[in-house]
Amino acid sequence: MADYSDRLRLEAEKINACLSAFPELKISENSPWEKVLEAENYALSAGGKRIRAALCVMFYELFSGCKNIPEYVYEAACAIEMMHTFSLIHDDMPEMDDDDLRRGKPAVHVAFGNAVGLLSGDGLAILPFEIISRLASEGKINPETAIKLIGILSGCAGNRGMIAGQMLDLWSEDNPERIDEGFLVKMSELKTGKMLIASCLFGAVLADADEMQMKSAEIYAKNVGLAFQIVDDILDLTSTKEELGKPIGSDLERHKPTFADVLGLENSQNEARRLSKAAADEIGKYPGGGLLAELAVGLADRKK
Amino acid sequence: MADYSDRLRLEAEKINACLSAFPELKISENSPWEKVLEAENYALSAGGKRIRAALCVMFYELFSGCKNIPEYVYEAACAIEMMHTFSLIHDDMPEMDDDDLRRGKPAVHVAFGNAVGLLSGDGLAILPFEIISRLASEGKINPETAIKLIGILSGCAGNRGMIAGQMLDLWSEDNPERIDEGFLVKMSELKTGKMLIASCLFGAVLADADEMQMKSAEIYAKNVGLAFQIVDDILDLTSTKEELGKPIGSDLERHKPTFADVLGLENSQNEARRLSKAAADEIGKYPGGGLLAELAVGLADRKK
Repeated sequence: MADYSDRLRLEAEKINACLSAFPELKISENSPWEKVLEAENYALSAGGKRIRAALCVMFYELFSGCKNIPEYVYEAACAIEMMHTFSLIHDDMPEMDDDDLRRGKPAVHVAFGNAVGLLSGDGLAILPFEIISRLASEGKINPETAIKLIGILSGCAGNRGMIAGQMLDLWSEDNPERIDEGFLVKMSELKTGKMLIASCLFGAVLADADEMQMKSAEIYAKNVGLAFQIVDDILDLTSTKEELGKPIGSDLERHKPTFADVLGLENSQNEARRLSKAAADEIGKYPGGGLLAELAVGLADRKK
Repeated sequence: MADYSDRLRLEAEKINACLSAFPELKISENSPWEKVLEAENYALSAGGKRIRAALCVMFYELFSGCKNIPEYVYEAACAIEMMHTFSLIHDDMPEMDDDDLRRGKPAVHVAFGNAVGLLSGDGLAILPFEIISRLASEGKINPETAIKLIGILSGCAGNRGMIAGQMLDLWSEDNPERIDEGFLVKMSELKTGKMLIASCLFGAVLADADEMQMKSAEIYAKNVGLAFQIVDDILDLTSTKEELGKPIGSDLERHKPTFADVLGLENSQNEARRLSKAAADEIGKYPGGGLLAELAVGLADRKK
């Protein structure tokens, strides 16, 4: 049986190959406007675990029963990675987290300047919708499916999803005394959780999943998402810069309380494990759900 | 016969009413994340001529023959205004044009801080897609129509549309010696023109227009768009701050050549009139196209 981390590595390779082949991102005119594309390709090629895209692919596989994943599923999965990458680019900017490093490389605004950072983030927020509409107009997915994907992605990424989470994150810097576990759960559900929900639902929708399967995908994603954020907070406190590929202790420097502060390290680790187990239990009941269950548990024990 | 400027005023009122009633923009939880919604509502309620939305509505009317415009056409028209407003918010930010005033009021990043400026722009770039997908899921437009709208909007606003134009604008600041008429035409076609094309095509698609009508809508928009930008450049040089509602001469201060510099004021005005006439001629051949023809000519003579 394949190990879940082997599978993640394999999917990451496929996603990286797919990301580098989008006609929408091809530089061909040698015109100054293509600087934005260059910055977007730079950000998209910086690597990362591609967990969101992998979740999309694996949920498609689980609910379609199809082992031979069609290329359009990878393209839709890449749309999720683009939306995620947009949020990283803007998050790193001076007015937000002001991080110079991302995945061990200079952040986009450092490498290309703040203005290009801003524009390339904007471009990557819009591009996912262009790609999904192209998949529909090419007949690879039907319009009803495309509209569902667009509703999910815009809802999860937008004002009441990831962006709301970023706003709460920002607010927490100025109101550290008002941060408790409930606030952190809410913030994390929005900031990280919503896009993980989108990832899993993308796969489910593409597989034409029924309502019960959609619900399971959402429960899985919600639990994994919260576990993922808690582990992120733990790693931010305990990992080294080399392991993590970004500055550590950056939350602490800005006096932004995290799960690790509010719950303590040990309780945080336990809570992450409890959530991961809930996710694993939810998806383990489906035949073929074993790998996703392992992934949920593994994410709670990751070291970077 | 109604004057085109009366019609624009009427449409602006309807659009403003529609913009203030979106469930997606309603503040109801009294939670700090809603600061982003507050900033978006602030930006959207700042007024403006609503030309893009009006073009959508008027093209729908022209090609559908329907005088009683359905509410969903206004909602789709508002989606265009949201995308336009997103670009204004980010354009005004320090890393871009660094303008403190917009439509006579403090720019969003001035009123709400740079981080909220960034996030509210992001939110308004994603929201249009959420709204169009909702219109489809509510059955107000069919999924095929929704996918067409999303393809048009993402294409016109994104990397190869408005954002490319913003990148060229940025580049022109550092390369004033390389700016000629051809460059300015290209920049303007992308930065202003593409979203005007989206506006007119939105109306045409919603009216189920045929290919020839779509082509006419695009020709009209392209000519009006370029004329509009040339007049903008003229006004930036000749108008007063009070008339324009924003700092004047801001292009000049940054040594950013405009049509007014490259062609001279008189030639610029003539070129704007020529383009407007081309737009008017294209649309004047349709029964009922008279008002849009007048609008094209009127825009080239506007004083603010």
